[in-house]
Amino acid sequence: MILKIILESDIPIYRQIRNAVIEGIALGQLNAGEGLPSVRQLSSELGINMHTVNKAYTLLKQDGFITIHRQKGVVVNQRSEMKLMQSQYDQLSQEMKPLIAEAFCRGLTLEEINGICKKFYTQFKEL
Amino acid sequence: MILKIILESDIPIYRQIRNAVIEGIALGQLNAGEGLPSVRQLSSELGINMHTVNKAYTLLKQDGFITIHRQKGVVVNQRSEMKLMQSQYDQLSQEMKPLIAEAFCRGLTLEEINGICKKFYTQFKEL
Repeated sequence: MILKIILESDIPIYRQIRNAVIEGIALGQLNAGEGLPSVRQLSSELGINMHTVNKAYTLLKQDGFITIHRQKGVVVNQRSEMKLMQSQYDQLSQEMKPLIAEAFCRGLTLEEINGICKKFYTQFKEL
Repeated sequence: MILKIILESDIPIYRQIRNAVIEGIALGQLNAGEGLPSVRQLSSELGINMHTVNKAYTLLKQDGFITIHRQKGVVVNQRSEMKLMQSQYDQLSQEMKPLIAEAFCRGLTLEEINGICKKFYTQFKEL
């Protein structure tokens, strides 16, 4: 997996790593059981602090996307382990709110917004 | 307008201010021609650095949401001044991507995602 990190982005780096892993899973580039680089490897590859990678992995683990094994290392979970709990649904929904507000103010119709969702959604792969 | 800032959030504070102003506009709580607090006022109210508020206002100005007058202060623009350019459309669309990916991995259908978009969109008010 090629992880593209934009250092000058508004989005914190640990958040970019988290997002990239989730997108990789959604796109079918990262499959269940597949290993991710260790914290040490990834931080050295990206030239960033180990703490930053660790933070991203901890979030991904908390949210059920990966498991951190003592021996097998960092491994992608089954989709079934990523299922949404109500609290996560609310959080996801709250994160979408400012983007919908911006789209609305900028004159996009609901159909156009749905079109953006559909464009990405159809790129993602069911397993 | 009541600006709710969460200091321990993942989202940078200037971004939270920007989002709150845009949501206020979308919800019809902030109308065209209405004044926003000055940088000094808002930073003192929220107990944050003036530089942070300034960064938020600069972004809002760049994106056509507000105008900063030397005399009238910070004023909300007309909706027509917020219209989307292609580059901004692409950026908005890219910001939605990780959220759609997450929703997909977590088993939400496209209809459920569209439902979230609709829920917020219908709260917003055409002027």
